[in-house]
Amino acid sequence: MLKIGASTHGESQLRLLRVVRRGDRHDARDLTVACRFEGDFADAFVEGRAAGLVPGEALKSLVHATARHHAGAEIEPFGLALCDGLLTGNPRITRARVEIMEQPWNRLEVGGKPQGQVFLTGTPERRTAVITSNGKQMSVVAGIDQLTIMRTSGLAPKRLRPGDEADPSGKDDGLQRLLVATLTARWSYTSGDVTFGPYRQGVRAAIVETFGCQASRSVQQTLYSIADVVLSSYAEISDITLSLHERPYRPVDMFSVGVENPDDLFVAIEEPVGVVEVTVERDRQ
Amino acid sequence: MLKIGASTHGESQLRLLRVVRRGDRHDARDLTVACRFEGDFADAFVEGRAAGLVPGEALKSLVHATARHHAGAEIEPFGLALCDGLLTGNPRITRARVEIMEQPWNRLEVGGKPQGQVFLTGTPERRTAVITSNGKQMSVVAGIDQLTIMRTSGLAPKRLRPGDEADPSGKDDGLQRLLVATLTARWSYTSGDVTFGPYRQGVRAAIVETFGCQASRSVQQTLYSIADVVLSSYAEISDITLSLHERPYRPVDMFSVGVENPDDLFVAIEEPVGVVEVTVERDRQ
Amino acid sequence: MLKIGASTHGESQLRLLRVVRRGDRHDARDLTVACRFEGDFADAFVEGRAAGLVPGEALKSLVHATARHHAGAEIEPFGLALCDGLLTGNPRITRARVEIMEQPWNRLEVGGKPQGQVFLTGTPERRTAVITSNGKQMSVVAGIDQLTIMRTSGLAPKRLRPGDEADPSGKDDGLQRLLVATLTARWSYTSGDVTFGPYRQGVRAAIVETFGCQASRSVQQTLYSIADVVLSSYAEISDITLSLHERPYRPVDMFSVGVENPDDLFVAIEEPVGVVEVTVERDRQ
Amino acid sequence: MLKIGASTHGESQLRLLRVVRRGDRHDARDLTVACRFEGDFADAFVEGRAAGLVPGEALKSLVHATARHHAGAEIEPFGLALCDGLLTGNPRITRARVEIMEQPWNRLEVGGKPQGQVFLTGTPERRTAVITSNGKQMSVVAGIDQLTIMRTSGLAPKRLRPGDEADPSGKDDGLQRLLVATLTARWSYTSGDVTFGPYRQGVRAAIVETFGCQASRSVQQTLYSIADVVLSSYAEISDITLSLHERPYRPVDMFSVGVENPDDLFVAIEEPVGVVEVTVERDRQ
Repeated sequence: MLKIGASTHGESQLRLLRVVRRGDRHDARDLTVACRFEGDFADAFVEGRAAGLVPGEALKSLVHATARHHAGAEIEPFGLALCDGLLTGNPRITRARVEIMEQPWNRLEVGGKPQGQVFLTGTPERRTAVITSNGKQMSVVAGIDQLTIMRTSGLAPKRLRPGDEADPSGKDDGLQRLLVATLTARWSYTSGDVTFGPYRQGVRAAIVETFGCQASRSVQQTLYSIADVVLSSYAEISDITLSLHERPYRPVDMFSVGVENPDDLFVAIEEPVGVVEVTVERDRQ
Repeated sequence: MLKIGASTHGESQLRLLRVVRRGDRHDARDLTVACRFEGDFADAFVEGRAAGLVPGEALKSLVHATARHHAGAEIEPFGLALCDGLLTGNPRITRARVEIMEQPWNRLEVGGKPQGQVFLTGTPERRTAVITSNGKQMSVVAGIDQLTIMRTSGLAPKRLRPGDEADPSGKDDGLQRLLVATLTARWSYTSGDVTFGPYRQGVRAAIVETFGCQASRSVQQTLYSIADVVLSSYAEISDITLSLHERPYRPVDMFSVGVENPDDLFVAIEEPVGVVEVTVERDRQ
Repeated sequence: MLKIGASTHGESQLRLLRVVRRGDRHDARDLTVACRFEGDFADAFVEGRAAGLVPGEALKSLVHATARHHAGAEIEPFGLALCDGLLTGNPRITRARVEIMEQPWNRLEVGGKPQGQVFLTGTPERRTAVITSNGKQMSVVAGIDQLTIMRTSGLAPKRLRPGDEADPSGKDDGLQRLLVATLTARWSYTSGDVTFGPYRQGVRAAIVETFGCQASRSVQQTLYSIADVVLSSYAEISDITLSLHERPYRPVDMFSVGVENPDDLFVAIEEPVGVVEVTVERDRQ
Repeated sequence: MLKIGASTHGESQLRLLRVVRRGDRHDARDLTVACRFEGDFADAFVEGRAAGLVPGEALKSLVHATARHHAGAEIEPFGLALCDGLLTGNPRITRARVEIMEQPWNRLEVGGKPQGQVFLTGTPERRTAVITSNGKQMSVVAGIDQLTIMRTSGLAPKRLRPGDEADPSGKDDGLQRLLVATLTARWSYTSGDVTFGPYRQGVRAAIVETFGCQASRSVQQTLYSIADVVLSSYAEISDITLSLHERPYRPVDMFSVGVENPDDLFVAIEEPVGVVEVTVERDRQ
């Protein structure tokens, strides 16, 4: 005998561009939305019955209608409203998950003056929000994806392999001279009733400033310090998960070409990519 | 007070190409490896101590040495050996996870005769294996990624939106005339002592033949049928998770350009991508 | 005073999937089309007048209507028909260029028997055709993109840097032990009235068999040999351009990890990618 | 009889990261370099002789050594120096082409204060330079790639298809309400002895401000206006080529979901991508 252990269905990669016009000043929000549902859909799998499944077109229309009212706002309230609409209209869904990703656009400035209606594409950094609800309990997890940062000093000693010796020439002080890393962060709110915009700005500042400016003995310690700053500053954030992918570079061996290298020249290599991930939460004991 | 809820570290995107030479007949295995570790590394995060962390270079050497002995084999035994080596050499690791992805190469045939030493790159389909171990218990999950299949008939009626009517012209029989979908599969073995190669071939055949050739009322039913075939055929497989991403196409409205369309012309559109995922397991009651 | 040196406009990335139904046997052609036009459009640039420009929607309709009649055929006649239609309907165009790329799908076989209506996605290799016409003269250039091939023996000695010595251990015989390369080919027909399908098959076979199976002192010589075979075999082909990108791999230094390496283990590296390109034509002197 | 119509060889995708340390203020330049050579290499193709070909490793070393001296500077002088070095050391090369692409990194600011040693990854926009030389004459072409801009007003009337009528409701004023476009620019200098940095800044400002802020009847007219500003401002620039790819969006038909749409909601679609390209030069008559 077989049973269905778990199942979901939904739609992903719904791309929306919302332009909000307040007189001469426009705002643009560029969003990608995905929705996934759980529920008692064993019939659909075992017998092929469509009853209760959310049709793709109906879902798309609901996303568009909700975007009409909410997409000018932060992505967290938009996600909360969408999650609510999905559960209200589809009684067989027992759990809905809405994921929103926002690509930022930067307002053009000409001569130091912001233009109301012209934007340049932003960096690869993305804002994310994941809203999950069973109709009674909602979880709101905000995040940042693909925040890439480079430090050219203030780094920890390189991790040596067993058997390695320090460089006898004294030139190599054992410090890693370059760190290029891409960070992902996810943090959970204790409530859906928070001013999400300023919180997001504060968390991002904590990440960038701690990572960029604080001396640290290792990337592990850096991540923990970021979590410490965030959880100490925001009582409404219950936990934070940080993951870091370190992009590998190696210094060019300039001796082989007969010149000195007082400054540094690095060659980007593709692998391996070092990964560190940590979740820090409040200890309620 | 804060505590570390979870943490991992490791390396990813280690790309290996193994050429095994048996006389004039060579075999090539093109692998990408990632390793992640858990353990008691709170010191590393809170105080920046490196003790017990696996250095990237040492990990890379272990992967290479293990590949020397095992990469000519299937990816599952290679992963098992690598997982074992990682736990043996690093006592502070309490749990290791090894992920291997294989890109297939096809042997060139000239005039129907296979060439021993020449290969053409394969399709985007990938073989995957994930081995997890805490030193006592090992889990082996094999899989297939990015298997893309197209059906041009034998499909279920289109799911209508509420309020839609059937086409009064009678031309539209309500059948969906095209399905292009990308499948991912993951299946768990009850033992690490299985002849993985033939099992993988059998599971892949079940997926392709059921998906491609069996009439079905919905993609949900198709996925369940695949799971049924796999779990009925292989007692050593305890569960299977199938996920399907349906790529959207829409028929071109040829009336607008004044010609009939007895055959079909479709335009690829990018969104939304429909997603269905199901896990089927044995019911032990 | 300024003048317009050159200008073009058009549409790209028109993606079409054509399903031709001949009873139970269907055929699918997955095409991406781009069109670019030249003409006397100085007014459009200098004064912003739209007269004579081809509107995007009208172009799209023409592509769809032409695909209705021709997309079941080879891409070369489809491109010829499309180019003709564009010039006929738009008198201010003095020169049209149509580019078509085809992604192959492989018919599924079950138990050695081809299925009429089920296909699996093919390799990254693509068929290309570029048709250019000024209304009087047409040029037809067919091609292959992204044909990736691997050889594990029969290769030329490695190119040494000045000052390098041969390996005194004798283990290194100076032969390059692995070549992974991606080829692009473009060949020109002397006429638009050729049976393009068999020619394409013949050129592809010449590329694959020469590259894969013929001993050669260098990739340069391999490319020339391919051109020689193609131009000797097909009088209707006037010239061929071959370009090869060599993907870099380096052997793993297994001594560092204390094991022998009778077989070979390579690590994929990302750069630099070696490039060689050559055009061979008939010498009419 | 066959002859070689044209041939090149070289290396591409050489990725360099140069960190210049001036006390506490560091600068980082992230470059990707490609080199291609022409010369009398018929022997290499016809007979497989390696004489005179530039070995990949030697080329890499030359790039690194040149980067040591020049990569802290603008990419144009670095390219000029590299081109010079290549021709000097390799007498059989009759023509060298060096392409450099720079990915910008933005200096982190904390509390309005720039940090000397911390950078965030920039937007997808890239700086490019192509230097070509035959030993006597050098050409320097600078450029910008992937500059993506969005305008939400001030746009021209939509181009209608033949047969389209204006919207009788009067709501649709016929203006296109959104333009998202990616620009590429290439401009040629009349001399290699120019202060490239300020010129690049000036050209970029002309592109962004003209495209973003000037009313225009069409994208064609916008491109011509940009060229006019650039060529009028900089006598040392002889010509400029601008190409624009318009990314398609369509307004969501909100009536179908029963709500008004005073603001705008657009759905990103993938094709077709409209393309316009123009070269404007000085008329020497």
